[in-house]
Amino acid sequence: MAGTLYIVGVGLGPGQITQEAINVLRSVGEVFIEEYTSMFETSLGDHIAKVVGRMVVKLSRRDLEEESGRVIINAIRKRGSAALAVIGDPMLATTHSALVTQATQLGIRVRVINGISIVCAAVSQAGLSPYKLGPVATVTYERGGVLSKRAYEVLAGNISRGLHTPLLLDIKDEGGFMSIREAVDVLIRLEEEVKQGIVSDDLAAVFESRIGWSDQAIVVASLTNPPDLKPPSVILIPGLLNPVEEEYLRVVHGAGEELLRRHINHVKALMRAM
Amino acid sequence: MAGTLYIVGVGLGPGQITQEAINVLRSVGEVFIEEYTSMFETSLGDHIAKVVGRMVVKLSRRDLEEESGRVIINAIRKRGSAALAVIGDPMLATTHSALVTQATQLGIRVRVINGISIVCAAVSQAGLSPYKLGPVATVTYERGGVLSKRAYEVLAGNISRGLHTPLLLDIKDEGGFMSIREAVDVLIRLEEEVKQGIVSDDLAAVFESRIGWSDQAIVVASLTNPPDLKPPSVILIPGLLNPVEEEYLRVVHGAGEELLRRHINHVKALMRAM
Repeated sequence: MAGTLYIVGVGLGPGQITQEAINVLRSVGEVFIEEYTSMFETSLGDHIAKVVGRMVVKLSRRDLEEESGRVIINAIRKRGSAALAVIGDPMLATTHSALVTQATQLGIRVRVINGISIVCAAVSQAGLSPYKLGPVATVTYERGGVLSKRAYEVLAGNISRGLHTPLLLDIKDEGGFMSIREAVDVLIRLEEEVKQGIVSDDLAAVFESRIGWSDQAIVVASLTNPPDLKPPSVILIPGLLNPVEEEYLRVVHGAGEELLRRHINHVKALMRAM
Repeated sequence: MAGTLYIVGVGLGPGQITQEAINVLRSVGEVFIEEYTSMFETSLGDHIAKVVGRMVVKLSRRDLEEESGRVIINAIRKRGSAALAVIGDPMLATTHSALVTQATQLGIRVRVINGISIVCAAVSQAGLSPYKLGPVATVTYERGGVLSKRAYEVLAGNISRGLHTPLLLDIKDEGGFMSIREAVDVLIRLEEEVKQGIVSDDLAAVFESRIGWSDQAIVVASLTNPPDLKPPSVILIPGLLNPVEEEYLRVVHGAGEELLRRHINHVKALMRAM
């Protein structure tokens, strides 16, 4: 079967769509969107209608995961091409990988159109170096009576090597994002269970809210004393800081000198102990 | 001193500039570019002239690093605002961090406009998960008779934890990028010195050339048997692969089943040994 599938990242907010993404969304046979893995400043469908000038078909989690994107494959069969527009970059969700693999196996050509990713944007806005960027983790809600320790373990592993940790926040089953306060409470509860001494007043965090939106906000504070920022948010926990990073946090984000000193001593002590 | 400095990421290729970047570059008092930390498909100045409709001032490494961006600060003083347009995302270069810090200290408001970053785009195009993305390293030329072991050490650290490693390739002092073959030769030479057994025929690599350009190419092969792709390139060395990642490499990028099997066994053996 011939035809082309485009997986198109549209960035994090309305201004971040690229010219390439606009051109692809204009030229394909049909445009689909999914909004259940992330959140856009306005309705993604309205945004595409306005910028690209065409209507889109909104897919549910069920359409993509249980029905394996059958509706997209059918559109390619009928019109020769289709695009799935996703918020951010197409890198984060396994769903999109599975769709690309499946389409390729059917003989469909696939092109991944990059968009601005929350992982790189969060590190860049914080002023931290990608040379010390450790693996990403997601802070999750308790599900089926079980609270996953994964985010704590990834954070501990990164801190023990002086690396920075981007923490993404969970999506509620009924829609909407975990708040910064909820995420910090999960981390404090995990600290009480695991007791490795990572989560403490001495750990600094870069709290980032609505990156790429018109009301983007960034606050550096102690992890256990988070600011009240609107979702969606990301928490970036620095590991070791070089002098350029330290000055950036202090001068650009107004981080307290005393907090940064305590953070660096805390991380160094953890690196020695772990 | 009032005024605003914008550091604007324009993405990796001509199609990747965002609407936000275009709007900022149109509205500021003066636009500066630097092209010495990266490379664009066409001349960056010509591209901005075409898309944004205005002339830009090209800065040298000396203008930005030794002169501390004085010419940009002067432009903001005179015209109220200025933008420094950089290839990719503004996250990678220390120079840009230093400029932002300095401007903030002078009372200038700074806004970082995100662009598509090579780090996230490379991982996304490969089909690998950011949940196993380890720190970035750069493979460098011998300088002053010394060959840095840093890239090998970062790779070894990542592999020992099953993490993926994005390897950026050095820029020549006279301009232009290190080729894939040169980078592999550096890694083989480091293996002969360090002898941890990481670099071998059994290690798979995702070779990516000209991400975001019209002739983008991605090839999965043994690290020691690299394809001949045009610069600029990135080498992504996978750590452990989950079933979705493995299938993506095999189906979408045509990776040999036998290479993937050898790679996984090699990484597992290194993880046990290290």
